[in-house]
Amino acid sequence: MHKWTVLDKKALIQSPMFSFMEYKLKHGDKNTIHNFYILDTSDWVNILPITADGKIVLIRQYRAGIDEILIEIPGGIMDKDETDPIATARRELEEETGYITDNLEILGMVYPNPSFMTNKCYFVLAKDVKPLGHTHFDPSEYIETFTIDIKEFPEYILSGKIRHSLTINAFAYFQLKYPKFFNH
Amino acid sequence: MHKWTVLDKKALIQSPMFSFMEYKLKHGDKNTIHNFYILDTSDWVNILPITADGKIVLIRQYRAGIDEILIEIPGGIMDKDETDPIATARRELEEETGYITDNLEILGMVYPNPSFMTNKCYFVLAKDVKPLGHTHFDPSEYIETFTIDIKEFPEYILSGKIRHSLTINAFAYFQLKYPKFFNH
Repeated sequence: MHKWTVLDKKALIQSPMFSFMEYKLKHGDKNTIHNFYILDTSDWVNILPITADGKIVLIRQYRAGIDEILIEIPGGIMDKDETDPIATARRELEEETGYITDNLEILGMVYPNPSFMTNKCYFVLAKDVKPLGHTHFDPSEYIETFTIDIKEFPEYILSGKIRHSLTINAFAYFQLKYPKFFNH
Repeated sequence: MHKWTVLDKKALIQSPMFSFMEYKLKHGDKNTIHNFYILDTSDWVNILPITADGKIVLIRQYRAGIDEILIEIPGGIMDKDETDPIATARRELEEETGYITDNLEILGMVYPNPSFMTNKCYFVLAKDVKPLGHTHFDPSEYIETFTIDIKEFPEYILSGKIRHSLTINAFAYFQLKYPKFFNH
């Protein structure tokens, strides 16, 4: 199996958040030519915040794509000057929830939509978080924060209370790396 | 917390696969007006295929967004005439891998990118799959199929051999619903 060859790239729409591109690609195995739409975006960071007494900090916010208020973990886009996902995690955690900690570690990394998006999403575990910081919402943001016991996390996924793909990814990495939190 | 109000929708780019839209929205809590780009797409289905002797069927394919060959589970877009994710799962499983089965059940559903995409992704568990069908690739597809033991699945995720967000979602639902496959 062979990678494909990029013959041309053209930006159709550009915004501060992304470039909507058209790529002309030569198929690596069939040698045919195909045009693809590609969304060129910055990397994302999602944070799984846990308090010292085993509670997960979750958020509620309106999501325009599906026109619903969703339950998620906090997260955001890496700023241009941020090269370390830990720095983004620390900033977004405080901005969105008011919780802070110095106990941060990378849990994993996925490609959210590798067929047509260029970016990665990192997952950062934030342990011993405390509500001692200050929220700072973007103009279009409005977020409510609440906590659940870590042992309720599986039921939130199975019942459909949590349906955000990246939040469920964070759970999968956490359960694989820290199974003791879920064993009775 | 309140949902937002859609004041206007405009299609900027339309293709057979999606419409790239601009929405004008009134914020539900701040009453400010914001323009958002929204990708209006059909729902997706990803299939977790397992053989009678406990092997998972995985695929390798080139992904243009990240310019890499990735390991994933099979999946695809629901056709306009498909209303049941099980029908899409049956079709995509055979087209992409040549494996078939009548033992299909829905494992879960997520929103892949609810901030700017409209669609759902369903996960279908396909049990007792057998390589007795016929692959049928789209013109731009080229797929290699292989199997691993189900017990290797966690290591594939932890080591980074699997990095596709939706494949890791399928694992999370499967592990929550069928923990016996992973207990020793």
